[in-house]
Amino acid sequence: MDEKTAYIKTHIRDIPDWPKKGILFRDITPLLADAKAFPVAIKTLTEGFKDENIDYVAAVEARGFIFGSAVAEALGAGFIPIRKKGKLPAETEAVTYDLEYGQDTLEVHKDAIPKADSTVLMVDDLLATGGTMAAACHLIEKIGGNIAGISFLIELTDLKGREKLSGYDIETVISY
Amino acid sequence: MDEKTAYIKTHIRDIPDWPKKGILFRDITPLLADAKAFPVAIKTLTEGFKDENIDYVAAVEARGFIFGSAVAEALGAGFIPIRKKGKLPAETEAVTYDLEYGQDTLEVHKDAIPKADSTVLMVDDLLATGGTMAAACHLIEKIGGNIAGISFLIELTDLKGREKLSGYDIETVISY
Repeated sequence: MDEKTAYIKTHIRDIPDWPKKGILFRDITPLLADAKAFPVAIKTLTEGFKDENIDYVAAVEARGFIFGSAVAEALGAGFIPIRKKGKLPAETEAVTYDLEYGQDTLEVHKDAIPKADSTVLMVDDLLATGGTMAAACHLIEKIGGNIAGISFLIELTDLKGREKLSGYDIETVISY
Repeated sequence: MDEKTAYIKTHIRDIPDWPKKGILFRDITPLLADAKAFPVAIKTLTEGFKDENIDYVAAVEARGFIFGSAVAEALGAGFIPIRKKGKLPAETEAVTYDLEYGQDTLEVHKDAIPKADSTVLMVDDLLATGGTMAAACHLIEKIGGNIAGISFLIELTDLKGREKLSGYDIETVISY
């Protein structure tokens, strides 16, 4: 773990038993609140992809939006919001995926990537089981995007989320 | 309307009859997707407040996060996420407010503003009736923040949202 990673990690707070008993939640709000550490985190999220001419950054609501839009600005890319069902106003493409209990649906505008061969960097704060990100990647590919890679702030390695995302270039800033 | 405002406005798309018949929705996704126009919008959102030593930018999920985090970075401020009920992991302060039909609750971490006399800029994409933003301001004041002002990308003037936000310094980039 390098110095920058260690610095970012000091701004992540452990919350035991949330959202349910036995889960240790990694709370990123102290990182967001720190005007010095947050830009370091954004810069670190871009590092593996800054020479790849990223056209768009895509992220899933809601926490993903916080990192996704700042990473898009840092890379000089456009931002594509991926939302829960029924939130986007124009014609959408959708993907439904399995959760631990039940299912969820993500949507993106069908015309979100107007040019062929556009490269897209996927961004999120957390790689847990990888199910949401796998669905989000599928959605971006459905509308014609080429996924250049996936950048996560935090990876929970025990949950083996990378297995659901095989074939993609994955970078994570912090691992637990 | 100056040149910059006109430029930003060309990236906002009108969607008729959404979310219901008779409503003309102003869709910001083409603005987000444009790598040149989005940074102009972020800069314009900061302009009225860049000399005010803003400590924190606060925004309500989900669309508010897209603008809030980028404005926080541009101002060298920290970012405070305001979320729907049950989403934040640590101890929260809450405020419940009336919607057209029913009620909604917003929450923020009780310890989100550790220092007294911190200044907070509120950011959102849309000023409609002003109900959500009035609740968000109340919440930030409850945890000790001093609201320096409110910066909106779009104002729907017919809905008179400013009346619900009297006493605050409000800046809007685009009016309809």
